[in-house]
Amino acid sequence: MALIVQKYGGTSVGTPERIRNCARRILETQRAGNQVVAVVSAMSGVTDNLIKLAKEVSPEREPVEREMDVLLATGEQTTIALTAMAINALGGKAVSLTGAQAGISTDRVHTKARIVNITPDAVHKMLDDGNIVMLAGFQGETASGEITTLGRGGSDLTAIAMAAAIKADLCQIYTDVDGVYTCDPRVVPQATKIQEISYDEMLEMASSGSKVMQSRSVEFAKKFGVVFEVRSSMNNNPGTIVKEETPGMESVVVRGVSLERNQAKVTIDDVPDRPGVSASVFGALAQANIIIDMIVQNVSTDGLTDISFTLGGADVAKAEAALAPVIAGFGGKAALRTQSGIAKLSVVGIGMRSHSAVASRMFRALADASINIQMISTSEIKVAVIVDEAEIERSARAVHTAFGLDAASA
Amino acid sequence: MALIVQKYGGTSVGTPERIRNCARRILETQRAGNQVVAVVSAMSGVTDNLIKLAKEVSPEREPVEREMDVLLATGEQTTIALTAMAINALGGKAVSLTGAQAGISTDRVHTKARIVNITPDAVHKMLDDGNIVMLAGFQGETASGEITTLGRGGSDLTAIAMAAAIKADLCQIYTDVDGVYTCDPRVVPQATKIQEISYDEMLEMASSGSKVMQSRSVEFAKKFGVVFEVRSSMNNNPGTIVKEETPGMESVVVRGVSLERNQAKVTIDDVPDRPGVSASVFGALAQANIIIDMIVQNVSTDGLTDISFTLGGADVAKAEAALAPVIAGFGGKAALRTQSGIAKLSVVGIGMRSHSAVASRMFRALADASINIQMISTSEIKVAVIVDEAEIERSARAVHTAFGLDAASA
Repeated sequence: MALIVQKYGGTSVGTPERIRNCARRILETQRAGNQVVAVVSAMSGVTDNLIKLAKEVSPEREPVEREMDVLLATGEQTTIALTAMAINALGGKAVSLTGAQAGISTDRVHTKARIVNITPDAVHKMLDDGNIVMLAGFQGETASGEITTLGRGGSDLTAIAMAAAIKADLCQIYTDVDGVYTCDPRVVPQATKIQEISYDEMLEMASSGSKVMQSRSVEFAKKFGVVFEVRSSMNNNPGTIVKEETPGMESVVVRGVSLERNQAKVTIDDVPDRPGVSASVFGALAQANIIIDMIVQNVSTDGLTDISFTLGGADVAKAEAALAPVIAGFGGKAALRTQSGIAKLSVVGIGMRSHSAVASRMFRALADASINIQMISTSEIKVAVIVDEAEIERSARAVHTAFGLDAASA
Repeated sequence: MALIVQKYGGTSVGTPERIRNCARRILETQRAGNQVVAVVSAMSGVTDNLIKLAKEVSPEREPVEREMDVLLATGEQTTIALTAMAINALGGKAVSLTGAQAGISTDRVHTKARIVNITPDAVHKMLDDGNIVMLAGFQGETASGEITTLGRGGSDLTAIAMAAAIKADLCQIYTDVDGVYTCDPRVVPQATKIQEISYDEMLEMASSGSKVMQSRSVEFAKKFGVVFEVRSSMNNNPGTIVKEETPGMESVVVRGVSLERNQAKVTIDDVPDRPGVSASVFGALAQANIIIDMIVQNVSTDGLTDISFTLGGADVAKAEAALAPVIAGFGGKAALRTQSGIAKLSVVGIGMRSHSAVASRMFRALADASINIQMISTSEIKVAVIVDEAEIERSARAVHTAFGLDAASA
């Protein structure tokens, strides 16, 4: 008998009929001889509607975060009750638990709390009594009993953290895609599903635009060694297993190709090349809550240098405003240029650690396709380039083929 | 500084704008120098929608009651969060508490739990910190931490029980009527608002069709001596104070006239007049969950008697089915007759205890209006009669006038 944690996202429980489908799948899993804890999100659309209500009653200011958590937590509470009812109606035995009832303790940072501890006594007791446990994702409570929510991707985190706490044999993340692909199949039709991927690769794919899961959930799984599977709630296909890397994984040099559109580049020319300059630039951006991706600083000439960085296209104006006083402080010729309409293409794979030729093979593939590379950034298991957004799909296909990832050659 | 408990029903918090209106009223109450605990119901329509969802996911059977409570409790949790946000947006300071967080402990009877204990430490602490406390009505938790709901009228009960637990100076029940009237103003335009009414009178009015509040909340208030005021959330008019009777109250013989439409009468003729007969008749009705109102048994002749009772018009078929085997068991000529299209008119007042002429004055008024009385039932502070439903409004006006309750003569 295995102990299995499953997680179903908002789309999978978006209607009463879909809730019943999930209930059937959960019940089948139990009847196959397993103990099951199923984590669910709010029904799709519910959270957005609650946020809309919150804004309507609080037009003068942002809704108080403590109360936002009390409000949003009702979404998952609704789904656990409905799914438990559905399982009982189908002849099974299920009970629901809110995050607080399941012993999920968090810090006091409302709307983006971190799990500090899980005391799964109630979960164990209910499983031992033969129940399926329907667990509300995305929520917990503070030591003093206040309701908190975990922020974006919170239900995935609930599933993985609970799997760690109860030492589950398997954690299945059900979503609306079949698993993690070598590239977005809408861009590269020859993309194939990846059977196994390491935590680090999954993290690089996530940070490079393949948003199957939020990075924090993958990081949590890595930290506690939780093996999980990303799979579809719409069929019975095996998904993608995410786990610690194994020696065999390195035989594949590149696991996947990931793309991120709508990026922009900001360049500050003729910056004085002295200590503290980068700190003042990126300190100002951090204070404005602007997330920066790639950073490149050129070699200094004549005591002046150029700093370039990329960011989401929507943040350009905010970045310009944040940097204006900093640049004025530099004096001299220092000036800012921005360029929108660019995109990032990344190849990811732990195998590339031992294969130095990955970058050159990628650059050669792009050159052969006459695509100009505007910036380059590398990590131990990733090479990323910036290209013109109009060429991102062609770039992805060229690189996908060059690394032998196409379905025919797989 | 007074400690005030307010309660707002589902209509009063039915839209974001109405929530803001309640928030303003609550805030004004606090700013007038009071501490305020405000109990709210689910926004009107929300509970019905949740029940509909529950039926959709559970078509094979009634939804599990434990999960029904988890589901329905989200309705009030949503309202407390939104109202607390609205108060904060308007410049006040409010925090929300679910029933569980507020220390409302109940028994384990899901969907109609009874409050067994309230530990209001969290409420006191938040009040002492200068907060308005937004308290979820209708809900509590069991000793083992399961969510329960209190059944119909549960939010009124929450307000009155919390007022008792924190020894509030005043408990205000805000609703969509101005208070308790001497009769339904739609029937008797001369009806006037009652300034003060005793618990017992309020109970008799409630059981006679004036459904401003459920009887159980009034009973609870009586048991714990909670003085409360029924008033409108749409204006600032003083409402009706409900409290223990005082000597002065007896100077008014009849407090009000109450009417209940759509009643039916069932008569069993030629029943053997022997011990156990009534028990078998009303035992069968109780087992079928049919609520009986008035019961009349005629004097026996020749060892046979007639039993009549009234019930809601919708329950007639159910009663016939429940009684068929009982009547067959009596043998002989025993037979059942039903009559729909009747209504009940009651006069209520603690003053009638010392005024023996109330019944005759009522019957005289009806006779003068040529209205036939079909059944009569009395309690210490009530006289009720059954008349043809077509004549109920005319009956009410005649009796209202006869007891000097009309506005002009008040």
